[in-house]
Amino acid sequence: MADGIRINLKEKLAAVTEHWHPALVDTIDDYDIKIVKLLGDFVWHKHAEEDELFVVLNGTFRMDFRDRQVTLRAGEMIVVPRGTEHKPYAERECEVLLLERQGVVNTGDASPGAYTRRSVKKV
Amino acid sequence: MADGIRINLKEKLAAVTEHWHPALVDTIDDYDIKIVKLLGDFVWHKHAEEDELFVVLNGTFRMDFRDRQVTLRAGEMIVVPRGTEHKPYAERECEVLLLERQGVVNTGDASPGAYTRRSVKKV
Repeated sequence: MADGIRINLKEKLAAVTEHWHPALVDTIDDYDIKIVKLLGDFVWHKHAEEDELFVVLNGTFRMDFRDRQVTLRAGEMIVVPRGTEHKPYAERECEVLLLERQGVVNTGDASPGAYTRRSVKKV
Repeated sequence: MADGIRINLKEKLAAVTEHWHPALVDTIDDYDIKIVKLLGDFVWHKHAEEDELFVVLNGTFRMDFRDRQVTLRAGEMIVVPRGTEHKPYAERECEVLLLERQGVVNTGDASPGAYTRRSVKKV
């Protein structure tokens, strides 16, 4: 449940230790607001029914699609449309705010796999 | 519809001229991702059925609740729970990323009023 408190994203990010494992910071309706640290290559996957918002807080990462690549820097965002294969890649650690419907698994149709994290830890 | 393109929030903010009038930058599922510039006092209102996310991009603003005040700076966020009366206030211009379900009117139960903006311009 949303509880109307101030959330400092830098402080919350300090509690995130594992790359690619999203941590929950709050909820809005039935959506999870999460933070995640990216480093290296993720896996190709898609979410059949859900769009997914990435807002870059610090650093740079590249969103690969099958037909193009989009480089995103701090202050930039992208919504990956449902059903679209994508693969994030970060040459250096990149901190991202994520928003997606509750219950979405991070590796989508590529689950289960080495990067699959079904649990979402609240930080 | 989400279309998977890079959105630079600073560039989009340059196209926003009227305080308190949210502009649409993208959608995620049936939610609008908006940006807004705050300055001065808004009106007390609530949204009966929808939570509302505020992420501060630049500047500082204060979210007043009936029983407390929360000051938010760049890199901080708050989710105002549904049914909770609130009133944003910004002493100096503050730039915010908003997320709320499509169809939510900015002034909630205080509509229509001087600050009510039913149209959402895409920038």
